[in-house]
Amino acid sequence: MSVTNLNIAVVGATGAVGAEMLRVLEERNFPFSGLRVFASSRSAGKTVTCKEKPYTLETLEGADFSGLDIALFSAGSETTKAYRKAFNDAGCIIIDNSSAYRMAGDVPLVIPEINGEDLKGHSGMIAVPNCSAIVLLMALYPIYKLTPVKRVVVSTYQAVSGAGAQALRELTEQTRDVLDGKVVTPTILPHRIAFNLFSHNTTINDEGYNGEEWKVIQESKKILHDDSIAIGVTCVRVPVERAHTESINIEFMGERPSLEAVRSALGAFPGVKVVDDRAANHFPMPIDASGKDDVLVGRIRNDISNPNAIDIFASGDQLRKGAALDAVQIAEYLVEHDLLTKK
Amino acid sequence: MSVTNLNIAVVGATGAVGAEMLRVLEERNFPFSGLRVFASSRSAGKTVTCKEKPYTLETLEGADFSGLDIALFSAGSETTKAYRKAFNDAGCIIIDNSSAYRMAGDVPLVIPEINGEDLKGHSGMIAVPNCSAIVLLMALYPIYKLTPVKRVVVSTYQAVSGAGAQALRELTEQTRDVLDGKVVTPTILPHRIAFNLFSHNTTINDEGYNGEEWKVIQESKKILHDDSIAIGVTCVRVPVERAHTESINIEFMGERPSLEAVRSALGAFPGVKVVDDRAANHFPMPIDASGKDDVLVGRIRNDISNPNAIDIFASGDQLRKGAALDAVQIAEYLVEHDLLTKK
Repeated sequence: MSVTNLNIAVVGATGAVGAEMLRVLEERNFPFSGLRVFASSRSAGKTVTCKEKPYTLETLEGADFSGLDIALFSAGSETTKAYRKAFNDAGCIIIDNSSAYRMAGDVPLVIPEINGEDLKGHSGMIAVPNCSAIVLLMALYPIYKLTPVKRVVVSTYQAVSGAGAQALRELTEQTRDVLDGKVVTPTILPHRIAFNLFSHNTTINDEGYNGEEWKVIQESKKILHDDSIAIGVTCVRVPVERAHTESINIEFMGERPSLEAVRSALGAFPGVKVVDDRAANHFPMPIDASGKDDVLVGRIRNDISNPNAIDIFASGDQLRKGAALDAVQIAEYLVEHDLLTKK
Repeated sequence: MSVTNLNIAVVGATGAVGAEMLRVLEERNFPFSGLRVFASSRSAGKTVTCKEKPYTLETLEGADFSGLDIALFSAGSETTKAYRKAFNDAGCIIIDNSSAYRMAGDVPLVIPEINGEDLKGHSGMIAVPNCSAIVLLMALYPIYKLTPVKRVVVSTYQAVSGAGAQALRELTEQTRDVLDGKVVTPTILPHRIAFNLFSHNTTINDEGYNGEEWKVIQESKKILHDDSIAIGVTCVRVPVERAHTESINIEFMGERPSLEAVRSALGAFPGVKVVDDRAANHFPMPIDASGKDDVLVGRIRNDISNPNAIDIFASGDQLRKGAALDAVQIAEYLVEHDLLTKK
């Protein structure tokens, strides 16, 4: 990367995804010369660490954003909407983890390994897709490129950290209470999550799909530039701390590719790791995917119920590739392809 | 029920399913005059309780089975195979929870609400289907009767107690260890189950399906008397204590029925309870299904990816309707329809 003097910001730096963004920036040694970190007034004045240096948390209110080149946002849709103009006016590109602008026509929705090219038309606002959509598409896209796909049926097993740090705390505290025989009352999540699971609690629309499912369907079509792909999805929250797992049935337009071709396409795709050991009964598991960059894919098999379909099973860390890593990879792509506003 | 002096046995009375059988016999006030309970030599001499009376555990070795009318077996395939002849020769019908004879041509494989009629041809050995197949079919059959079904795609969320009482203990102890920051080593289940999930650990066959998936496929066809129904299934173990949950996509031969017709068919079917409150985001959950006789069904919606398909989400207690209750219901059917060997 040739750009020097890059000034970046992380907005929502104390959240589950924001904290992961700081870790990913450090691990990948993202080349910034300046870093500013923003959080709510509750955290203002405290410090966070990145590349072994402390950074003091600021609030967005009244701040001057001039000089910033890229801001990684993970502070919810309302914050993104409220500060888009101020950041863009200051010449700063926003890479946003919220759903605020994902479906906007002028906003690229990007998984760099799949549609990094879409960044070329950006106008200062770039969206990171929904985490379940990212895990699905990382597993699906190498196969989709191999043979045209007609329809996908997905059931998810989603980790609790996808609902935020407080929900994750509720999982561990509530689990201990259940083990101790105490009566538990959910406060963050709508239902008991300890030793339980439930349909994703986002609002159900008129079609009967919840918000999470609708995002997976709509965002996948946008990322693939394919309105004709049919996607059915059921999103479920399970008592797992981290990494979303998905059971994916893929029906092709015509004859299905050989399993060898599928395995080799997945194995060759950056960001995907094939974990498919039938003899040892070892397949993708959330504890293996947690903290890892790769989306794990396995249980690669022909669907006995449809001669044109196959099944796969995937697990990916929704805080990393599903959010923070994807955001940083977008920033890297902008730098590498000279797509910064700054020249 | 007109039969009096019915002598029954529970074989495997100390296991998770055996203990549930005793509870179900008591709760339903099954009309036995004699009860014998069998377990391994480890438990022989100890007592179990049913209908407030203690029963002393016997071993099968060397026992005299004469006078027994019905034996509910849940002691594994090998025990069933070893003792089939001795029980049958003594004039005792076996209702077996193992997979030993499920696919045998002369053995009825029965969910009484669905194919109780098949009991009429029995020859002393009757099989209780696999628990995941029972939960699937209880949710599917009312819809299947309404409109012919072409293909079903299922992903399961299976409770740990399905792997036995020791596995359930491993879940709770291991979960506590993980919460306490201890290193855990799985001993009963093949992988860590605390805050994790994994593809069902039965052996993978040449088709790439594991043993559990294969049972669901083959047994469902036998129970429905329908070799042409296409069933694709992915079986997954999740950190839930009790009740199997399933995400089920149903594709019809022709036009899908209206959701109203589906809801009313499900609501009218004995053993099924519709839990489908979109406004409150309340759908089937394993903690709601645990300890209950009904299989809960909800998330009833049109599949946006296929105009001839719908989705449903079901949860049922695999120790009750998935095993012990089904066995006792079969016994009740035999009594009610005068299908006992005893006249």
